[in-house]
Amino acid sequence: MPELSLRGSEMPASPIRKLVPYAEEAKRRGIKVYHLNIGQPDIKTPEAAFDAIKNFDVKTAEYTHSAGIESYRKGLAGYYKSVGIDISFEDILITTGGSEAIIFAFMATLNPGDEVIIPEPFYTNYNGFAVQAGVKIIPVTSYIETGFALPPIDEFEKLIGPKTKAVLVCNPNNPTGYLYSEEELRQLRDLVLKHNLFLFADEVYREFCYDGNKHYSVLNLKGLENHAVLFDSVSKRYSECGIRIGALISRNKKIIDAALKYGQARLSPPLFGQIAAEASLSVGADYFKEVYDEYLERRNYMITAVNKIEGVYAPMPKGAFYGILSLPVESAEDFCVWLLKEFNYEGETVMLAPAEGFYSTPGAGKNQARIAYVLKIEDLKRSAKILEEALKVYVKKTGTQL
Amino acid sequence: MPELSLRGSEMPASPIRKLVPYAEEAKRRGIKVYHLNIGQPDIKTPEAAFDAIKNFDVKTAEYTHSAGIESYRKGLAGYYKSVGIDISFEDILITTGGSEAIIFAFMATLNPGDEVIIPEPFYTNYNGFAVQAGVKIIPVTSYIETGFALPPIDEFEKLIGPKTKAVLVCNPNNPTGYLYSEEELRQLRDLVLKHNLFLFADEVYREFCYDGNKHYSVLNLKGLENHAVLFDSVSKRYSECGIRIGALISRNKKIIDAALKYGQARLSPPLFGQIAAEASLSVGADYFKEVYDEYLERRNYMITAVNKIEGVYAPMPKGAFYGILSLPVESAEDFCVWLLKEFNYEGETVMLAPAEGFYSTPGAGKNQARIAYVLKIEDLKRSAKILEEALKVYVKKTGTQL
Repeated sequence: MPELSLRGSEMPASPIRKLVPYAEEAKRRGIKVYHLNIGQPDIKTPEAAFDAIKNFDVKTAEYTHSAGIESYRKGLAGYYKSVGIDISFEDILITTGGSEAIIFAFMATLNPGDEVIIPEPFYTNYNGFAVQAGVKIIPVTSYIETGFALPPIDEFEKLIGPKTKAVLVCNPNNPTGYLYSEEELRQLRDLVLKHNLFLFADEVYREFCYDGNKHYSVLNLKGLENHAVLFDSVSKRYSECGIRIGALISRNKKIIDAALKYGQARLSPPLFGQIAAEASLSVGADYFKEVYDEYLERRNYMITAVNKIEGVYAPMPKGAFYGILSLPVESAEDFCVWLLKEFNYEGETVMLAPAEGFYSTPGAGKNQARIAYVLKIEDLKRSAKILEEALKVYVKKTGTQL
Repeated sequence: MPELSLRGSEMPASPIRKLVPYAEEAKRRGIKVYHLNIGQPDIKTPEAAFDAIKNFDVKTAEYTHSAGIESYRKGLAGYYKSVGIDISFEDILITTGGSEAIIFAFMATLNPGDEVIIPEPFYTNYNGFAVQAGVKIIPVTSYIETGFALPPIDEFEKLIGPKTKAVLVCNPNNPTGYLYSEEELRQLRDLVLKHNLFLFADEVYREFCYDGNKHYSVLNLKGLENHAVLFDSVSKRYSECGIRIGALISRNKKIIDAALKYGQARLSPPLFGQIAAEASLSVGADYFKEVYDEYLERRNYMITAVNKIEGVYAPMPKGAFYGILSLPVESAEDFCVWLLKEFNYEGETVMLAPAEGFYSTPGAGKNQARIAYVLKIEDLKRSAKILEEALKVYVKKTGTQL
């Protein structure tokens, strides 16, 4: 049998999904599992999206333009204008999810072996895209003690070498929920200008910023017209993860032109997804307010609740819908497996994502887990209770010092 | 400004699409353009596909399983059974178009720098996927004189070296319309077994085989369980190119497992596309017969018509809906540009795809163009007439010897 490739056998499995077999096994035993491990919101997709698809009247489901349907690109430029980002539709390439925007940007700007500096913990699938593109992620560690604020610029400077080509930030951050301030972003601007790097920003959680904090986009940093590259997606904005529509945006025309060649190779982004996404542009402030209020209530409830559990600490996230918990255990992964394999509280358990997979530095975040507060309040209440009971048993069993 | 990557700037633009600006300019001048350059059929998508989407009743458009919706994978295994291919749904990974199946297979099996032998002319986007994966395509030339039959196995043998990892065939072939015989496929089987290579097959035109010829799948070659990898797509089968649903299929579990990790990184294939594709499985022999008869009539008409034009030769394709024309011109690309920029016949012109972009060997196929006979008969009639008139003018103008 011919051998697989190294990048086939060594590609890391998703830490969010690697415990799925244990969850499935628990369900087969009749245990109810609360999924705090994955960012699949239960929020309703706008009806306008479904209506547009129902009313879409063609005889043939044809390819669209490789850059996306022009009316959607124009509509999307209007959305950006409404959130204070002034770009032309020609700066926008519609992609198959935010994932493809990242791949295309890596392909257009990075050679194999090039390095991208990313604050860790980071969205674990960046690892997959880096393997796919043959580029190296260089982590700069952020810490739970500072709420995962941007590491000092000195720490970035130390990591910059001849292979460094870009810095990537996710803002608001998945998995930490941290929202980078305008000041922090300006520090990054000075850094990338000084070293002639690209600044990639994944801003798919733009709509979810709490406590009066405003989101600041890398596209609004002056002087970065040729450096700033935005990855975006409608998945979380309109709770339509399944439609697989994202966007790659840059004022650097060379990047968009190069990315479009990759877009042409894959012919077209999904037709129905684009129809749904374009229709979603029509939703008003009401939709966002309802969704926002719901997430805010969930965040406030859940982060407060977990902090009341003995030995647990979670900084209050300022954005997105994730939080990192420090747990009174040696290995959060062992604990997460145990929750699914051995524990239940009145026939129920919770599934968390061990945070170690979000770190690139070996051993970092070993006692941490990520939660996504995407379930309704009753389920979050129940989840917090189960977690509390589980830790009582686990800490006693393993003899952890609190 | 930071430099783009080499693979960003050197990625070839699609030869099918590179003349699009000329076509757009012609349309702005009021010229009607018949698009023979692109395989976008005008055939109707099954109503069942649209109905399923209209009736799909959920509140949230969620991610699906990264490997695809299980009921669709099971249904698809049933489709393969119906065409004589016996595989389990677990051997099937649903992908975002056939394009993603190719990328995932390359990632799972090939290291950067590895070589894949492909008979040329070949589907031009293989170049894009090869650049994306950092692998090298080694062409083995097939010739118009033999109707683009499989080159002798000796020619493959000559090209096999330490970096050779796979052979890729498209069957029936885009761009040539050639259908590989069972005997030719057995020769390839012996070759890949002898040299321990993978055999990739792109069989997206399986339904379109003419003149009583039967399609033979690489999955039915004995002894290739760990070597054979199938790329498939519903785009052409049900004329639903825009839904972006394909599949990667292999009995080699390691390949599917490795590909699934790439699938997890991009989360999920498109939800609505899968709903449409699953519903399309219900179409009966009637749908296929109608579509088949339509293509057959178009093929018979168009290939006969172009062969009547002085200086033009086109072998009769045995499958798919493409044909390669040898033209009485020095450069088919110059002629194709001229058709759009300078020529019109009663206010109309045709757009062809210069075949040079389908060859990897420099200069090969320079006087050839690919046509897709995906337009209705009246339009094909008109296109043939325009092509005939255009060649009269062009040959006279350029002084080509017939």
